[in-house]
Amino acid sequence: MTDPLVLFMPSGKRGRFPVGTPVLDAARSLGVYVESVCGGRATCGRCQIVVQEGSFAKHKIVSSNDHISAKGPKEERYERVRGLAEGRRLSCSATIQGDLVIDVPQDTVINAQVVRKSAIDRIIERNPAVQLCYVEVDEPDMHKPLGDLDRLKVMLDKDWGWDNLLVSQYLIPQVQGILRKGNWGVTAAIHRDLEASRPNIIALWPGLHNEAYGIACDIGSTTIAMHLVSLLSGRIVASSGMQNPQIRFGEDLMSRVSYVMMNPEGREQMTRAVRDAVTELTRKVCAEGGVDPGNVLDAVIVGNPIMHHLFLGIDPTELGQAPFALAVSGSVHTWASDLGLGINTGARIYMLPCIAGHVGADAAGATLSEGPHRQDRMMLLVDVGTNAEIVLGNRNRIVAASSPTGPAFEGAEISSGQRAAPGAIERVRIDPATLEPRFKIIGSDLWSDEPGFDADAERLGITGICGSAIIEVVAEMFLAGIISEDGVVDGSLAARTHRIRQTGRTYSYLLHAGKQEISVTQNDVRAIQLAKSALYAGIKLLMEKLGVDHVDTIRLAGAFGSFIDPKYAMVLGLIPDCDLSEVKAVGNAAGTGALMALLNRDYRREIEATVRRIDKIETALEPRFQQHFVNAMALPNKVDSFPHLAAAVALPEHSPRGDDAGDEATPRRRSREERAARRNRS
Amino acid sequence: MTDPLVLFMPSGKRGRFPVGTPVLDAARSLGVYVESVCGGRATCGRCQIVVQEGSFAKHKIVSSNDHISAKGPKEERYERVRGLAEGRRLSCSATIQGDLVIDVPQDTVINAQVVRKSAIDRIIERNPAVQLCYVEVDEPDMHKPLGDLDRLKVMLDKDWGWDNLLVSQYLIPQVQGILRKGNWGVTAAIHRDLEASRPNIIALWPGLHNEAYGIACDIGSTTIAMHLVSLLSGRIVASSGMQNPQIRFGEDLMSRVSYVMMNPEGREQMTRAVRDAVTELTRKVCAEGGVDPGNVLDAVIVGNPIMHHLFLGIDPTELGQAPFALAVSGSVHTWASDLGLGINTGARIYMLPCIAGHVGADAAGATLSEGPHRQDRMMLLVDVGTNAEIVLGNRNRIVAASSPTGPAFEGAEISSGQRAAPGAIERVRIDPATLEPRFKIIGSDLWSDEPGFDADAERLGITGICGSAIIEVVAEMFLAGIISEDGVVDGSLAARTHRIRQTGRTYSYLLHAGKQEISVTQNDVRAIQLAKSALYAGIKLLMEKLGVDHVDTIRLAGAFGSFIDPKYAMVLGLIPDCDLSEVKAVGNAAGTGALMALLNRDYRREIEATVRRIDKIETALEPRFQQHFVNAMALPNKVDSFPHLAAAVALPEHSPRGDDAGDEATPRRRSREERAARRNRS
Repeated sequence: MTDPLVLFMPSGKRGRFPVGTPVLDAARSLGVYVESVCGGRATCGRCQIVVQEGSFAKHKIVSSNDHISAKGPKEERYERVRGLAEGRRLSCSATIQGDLVIDVPQDTVINAQVVRKSAIDRIIERNPAVQLCYVEVDEPDMHKPLGDLDRLKVMLDKDWGWDNLLVSQYLIPQVQGILRKGNWGVTAAIHRDLEASRPNIIALWPGLHNEAYGIACDIGSTTIAMHLVSLLSGRIVASSGMQNPQIRFGEDLMSRVSYVMMNPEGREQMTRAVRDAVTELTRKVCAEGGVDPGNVLDAVIVGNPIMHHLFLGIDPTELGQAPFALAVSGSVHTWASDLGLGINTGARIYMLPCIAGHVGADAAGATLSEGPHRQDRMMLLVDVGTNAEIVLGNRNRIVAASSPTGPAFEGAEISSGQRAAPGAIERVRIDPATLEPRFKIIGSDLWSDEPGFDADAERLGITGICGSAIIEVVAEMFLAGIISEDGVVDGSLAARTHRIRQTGRTYSYLLHAGKQEISVTQNDVRAIQLAKSALYAGIKLLMEKLGVDHVDTIRLAGAFGSFIDPKYAMVLGLIPDCDLSEVKAVGNAAGTGALMALLNRDYRREIEATVRRIDKIETALEPRFQQHFVNAMALPNKVDSFPHLAAAVALPEHSPRGDDAGDEATPRRRSREERAARRNRS
Repeated sequence: MTDPLVLFMPSGKRGRFPVGTPVLDAARSLGVYVESVCGGRATCGRCQIVVQEGSFAKHKIVSSNDHISAKGPKEERYERVRGLAEGRRLSCSATIQGDLVIDVPQDTVINAQVVRKSAIDRIIERNPAVQLCYVEVDEPDMHKPLGDLDRLKVMLDKDWGWDNLLVSQYLIPQVQGILRKGNWGVTAAIHRDLEASRPNIIALWPGLHNEAYGIACDIGSTTIAMHLVSLLSGRIVASSGMQNPQIRFGEDLMSRVSYVMMNPEGREQMTRAVRDAVTELTRKVCAEGGVDPGNVLDAVIVGNPIMHHLFLGIDPTELGQAPFALAVSGSVHTWASDLGLGINTGARIYMLPCIAGHVGADAAGATLSEGPHRQDRMMLLVDVGTNAEIVLGNRNRIVAASSPTGPAFEGAEISSGQRAAPGAIERVRIDPATLEPRFKIIGSDLWSDEPGFDADAERLGITGICGSAIIEVVAEMFLAGIISEDGVVDGSLAARTHRIRQTGRTYSYLLHAGKQEISVTQNDVRAIQLAKSALYAGIKLLMEKLGVDHVDTIRLAGAFGSFIDPKYAMVLGLIPDCDLSEVKAVGNAAGTGALMALLNRDYRREIEATVRRIDKIETALEPRFQQHFVNAMALPNKVDSFPHLAAAVALPEHSPRGDDAGDEATPRRRSREERAARRNRS
């Protein structure tokens, strides 16, 4: 008779094993990741599995709970003491007795805690850099005077196969006491990241210690976002964010670099501010998740180059001027204790590599998350902020650049622009016939022409236009014919509606006439044109580098990308033409990438290798940037066609104008120096 | 024609190389260690060699300065700017033109400094854990946005073969500035100890940095001793010592353990005291040697187990009671910055392994220094302190133990005992005919019966008997017949000399009758007997373990070993019989071992492997210890013969006595508990 066949789900890995083989051993021999802290003692409960009953014709397996051993005394004891959900078994104790289909749940919660709905919609296969290993260490013996630490190492080798272990310095004075407190049973946290490095004992607890967490953190110029995740189950325990307190030193990145340059203590203040904020946010997510910060053992951090450098204590001044030299571009491995983050003293920090002087570890995180390098289709990944980071490519080749979009997309430089806050206009529609607008404000679900809106407006106020709505209103103005394809507000329409009003030499569009007048001026339109042209020109440069005339799929990362309507972005020509269903907002992709690198160290190697082969384009140095920029000033573009968009939206008729149709904002008149100055402010 | 033959001295390594091969390359390819910091740029001057001229018949080489290339422009520039001693050549620039015998000087001094006479009488082949590497790093390039640190790593790989480098966290924020300060030329200190660990950049300087030092430190209970040595030349720059300030917490080790047990802050105080002392001593040797402490990059530390533990911040309480469990026995790799030693922030610390709970890293250092494991002859290595550490063995097998000798050998428990200080009696002779003594005191070169001695004595005082003289006076009393072989002061001699005086039931010998009477009492003799019996019994146990009835060579380590006369030690039966010329005092062998491990990391692996295979004997647990102890109470021994000694010294006739010839000090009456208590005080 042949050995029973065992199939593991969801991985689909399968193999034959002799009757009596523990299910955990079978899983391990197939490379199926099943957690275990206690080392098969049936005490940690981490190795739970579920037998799928039934006839699996496709796999020719009839699986049944009769094909797994009955619960033995150890497993019964665990069930009695700790509880075991219906159908759950401990795979270290249960043995194979016949053919089985076995499900490895990804959510094994041991110590019940407040669990938020996962912020991430994917299952990340786990292979964390930190592993908990319970061992029972020999007591001291005068005849074999091996030290406590040395006997611990012997057992970690014997039971878990960790040879050649190093130990964190801070633990050396503690090992003695912890071993005795645990009556020689202790749980060690082993950190192993790079294969060429020796694994390290980074933490040690008396007895069985069944909790290990990590944080994934994206340090943005405006916002710091963090996930707290169990390294043992992969579950996100808490996610939170806070304002980057460096804002008090300057709203945008360049003003912070200036602060460093002008103030002798500036770099240190800024570093302290960001580290304190990360510490504070860690405390917050730990409090939310009911997790002791001492159980946080690993951290993965991403950020734009300036945040990355400041967090590491590096002077970012070099990043403010050509050649925008990074002090360190490769991934950084360091210690939480050196940075003072208030988590376990032995915890490690991993920072993703930076791609270039303006394309940071955040872009690397987004790349890891969205994976252009994992697919054949041509993917465009754009993270729009004051500086847009652009990654384009597929399995064969990837290029990246940044473009100096400036703060217009965030509502700055816009006459009625404001941050996304209650009362800000967030959606706009303009009737092409009447040129009358309707809109929504943050805090109300109603359109401005619906009953009840006025009450909401009374309560919330109508205070300005938020960043994402700027895109929408300018696009609607274009679709309604209020602005021409070259962005000029059509003054002749003043005859048709009071909303078109002259101010000096140009015209504006009155969106709302309340206590506070909200208009879109010619200058506002110009600011959006300049920003979107910079972005589009960067994208075009990358497309040219790869020799492609279209992209297959577009990912918009970041908060801005989450709120804008892809259709309007395309109407304005922020992004190239593409099937609209292939344009997706992916939220904080950088943070998701950090989370992936936290839960699986293979992703660290993957993004390191990917970043090494990304070609970086310095837009400011490319002679064709200027031409692309000029062409992109038109709506959606002077030369590029948008067939997918045209099929979905009624675009105004294309009426090419001569090159000489300039006005005071034509980019031709802006010198390269001015553009460089703009980028440096971002 | 065959290629020229080149022989390197003192290693004797030889090989044939094509004409035009740089001498440095030839040396490297043969594994001859020639230092070079600048990487062949003829700027560091570390790679100097000397051509030996003449006909070397044995090697069939005629060597001549005509067989090496003339100085090129780079070497001439170095000579002009820095100077080059007569005959010296830079091996990176000089090329092979014919047969050569080349001497690699071990003392290449680049920055002249005060150099003390070497404390160590041996040449230690260098292979330090730290290497200085000068590189010229590419400037930042917008098109290849590799970070500063990353480009530094590229060059360290390209020029020096260091791949996979890690970098010390503290350097990450500094790399940027150092590269720019050095105009892209920098010197990196690379630390590599274990093969399985990734090498680390631990320090970085702008430009060519040509100095790297290390400290080798032996932390004794009484004295801390330190060598400061150049890692580039192997030269000892300064050696110094100071009192261990822990003495204020207790004279002996056990009273310090008690202090830790009794005082909540005791361990921390003690750790701070010893680290501060090591820091202070480092400052002192650096000042003496004119060395910037920032150039100290590596440190090797040895000490007995309690000092070892306290230095690392480990509670030593466990070492004060059975089973005398070490918290860590293997070698320890740590960081100077964690211990706050005031040397380079990136400097590393290596601590030799401990052999057992009472046989510490100091004994491991002495073993490494004297090398029983490197020879066929049976070597006995004894470090006598309040606790004697004993190592016995040869290439095949090594055993080790400690014996509770107590403080008698150091002058404590002796009525007129005192520390070695001016005025202390340090040499004694007793005329067997008259029983009159003569002696020398520390501070005077004269014997007490020589003219002028009285003036010296008037100036210095005659204040007591120092530790080493205690051995001598008791041995002389035995040789003169004043005490019997079982250690009893012969009261009948009171009739012959006033120097034998009765005190209660026993007699004493008056050594000096001045302002301060100095006598040797029966109790003093007993104290010495107990101490030497403990030592000898430990040695006997080890000899039994190895199945040997004699040893070939004896090394006496430590200050005590340096001052006692081997002959008298043997007369008393402290050590087993041996050719007297084979009994050698080796001074601070532990410190020498530390120095070896500092200058050559191969010695670290050697002592780690050796310690792993040393069999440890716990004397207190060996049933035969008591019998050996009783036999050793006799002078020199009740059962063992001393043929080598008898040939050199007229020993009193052997008169065996019955086993029942006890007196109140017979060890039979001392319980095992009392002995354990004694050992714990040591």
